[in-house]
Amino acid sequence: MSGPGEGGTEPTVDARVVRTRNDILRTALQVLVEQGWDAVTHAHLAEQAGYSRATVYKHWATRTDLLRDALARVGDVPHHTPTGDLRADLIAELTVFRLAIEAERLDRAMAVLVALTAAAPELIDVRDTLVTNGERVLRALLRPVAGDLLEAAMLMLSGSVLYAAQMHGRPPTDDVIASTVDMTLRGLAASGTS
Amino acid sequence: MSGPGEGGTEPTVDARVVRTRNDILRTALQVLVEQGWDAVTHAHLAEQAGYSRATVYKHWATRTDLLRDALARVGDVPHHTPTGDLRADLIAELTVFRLAIEAERLDRAMAVLVALTAAAPELIDVRDTLVTNGERVLRALLRPVAGDLLEAAMLMLSGSVLYAAQMHGRPPTDDVIASTVDMTLRGLAASGTS
Repeated sequence: MSGPGEGGTEPTVDARVVRTRNDILRTALQVLVEQGWDAVTHAHLAEQAGYSRATVYKHWATRTDLLRDALARVGDVPHHTPTGDLRADLIAELTVFRLAIEAERLDRAMAVLVALTAAAPELIDVRDTLVTNGERVLRALLRPVAGDLLEAAMLMLSGSVLYAAQMHGRPPTDDVIASTVDMTLRGLAASGTS
Repeated sequence: MSGPGEGGTEPTVDARVVRTRNDILRTALQVLVEQGWDAVTHAHLAEQAGYSRATVYKHWATRTDLLRDALARVGDVPHHTPTGDLRADLIAELTVFRLAIEAERLDRAMAVLVALTAAAPELIDVRDTLVTNGERVLRALLRPVAGDLLEAAMLMLSGSVLYAAQMHGRPPTDDVIASTVDMTLRGLAASGTS
C-alpha cells in the first residue's frame, strides 16, 4: 500500500477511510470462510472489526455489496516468479495456490463465490477477475501450448488443487502436486507440443 | 422406487410420505441451485412444492436439516457403465458428469455444499458420501494405477470438469474432455503403469 499517510506523518482522512474499509473487508472474508455466509451481517462485522454499525452501513448498503468487495480481495492471490525451469515453476505455482488455500481458506471463499452467483449474478464479474488473476502465471508458463490442449492442461492443473481442497477436504500433498505436473508434462510432450 | 403402494392400488400412507418428502427435497435442491441458499426457507419451499408450511416443518425442523437431506440427493449421480475400452470409458464417465452439471447444476450444488461446511460441519459427511459415490466408476477404471499417481489422475480428471463449470462458468467441451483423458493416459503410460 502507498496511501498518502505514509512516511511517519499522521494518516490523512483518505488513508483512514482506506484502512477502515480494509479492516472491515478483511474481517468479512475471514467471517465468511470461518463462520459461513449467514454470519456476514453488518452488525456482526461491526462487532468483530471494532467499528460502529453506522460505519459499516455507510460503506456498504447491502450484504451483497459487502460480499462483492470482500470477495474481490480474494483476487489478490500471490504468485510464484518463474525461474525458467518449467517443471519447478509449475510445481511452485501450484504450491503457492495450496498455501493460499491453507492460510486463507481460498477454497471456501471460491465455493461461496460460486454458490452466491445463483442469487447474485453480478458476482460473476468478481469471479471472472479472480480466475483471470489466478490463472495468469500458469497460462504464461504453458504458453507454447494452445487450443484445447492448453485448456485441458489449465483445467487439470488448477482443477486438481481446488477439487482436492473442496471435495476431499485437503489440498494435494507435495508428492501429488509433483505427480500432477509430471503427468501433464509427459502428456504434453507425447502430443509433440512441449 | 419400490414403495408398498406400487402395483395399481392406492398408495399407502408410507408411500405418500415418501412422495411428499421427495417432492419437497427435489424442490429444495432446485431452489438452491437456481435462487441460492437464502431462498431455501420452509415458507418458500411449501409454496413452490405445493404443500403446507406445517408439512415442511414436520419433516425438517431446521433449514440445515432440509439442506442436508436435499444435498444428500446429489449423491445419486448417474454413471457410465464401463465397456472395457479405457479411453472411451473415461471420456464417457466425464461426459456423464458434465451432463449432470448441465441438467441439474451439480456444480452449484457442490459449491453450496462446500460453502456451508464452514457453518455446518455435519455436512462434511454428506460431502464425503457424494464424493465417494461420484468417484467410484473413475477409480475402478483407473484401478491398475495406485498411490500418488492414482490420486493425481483422479484429481485431474474430476477436477478439470468441476473447475471449468464453477470457475469458467461452463463445463469442458467434448474436445477438451478428450484432451484431458488423452493427456492423462499418455502421462500414465509414460510412467510405466498403464
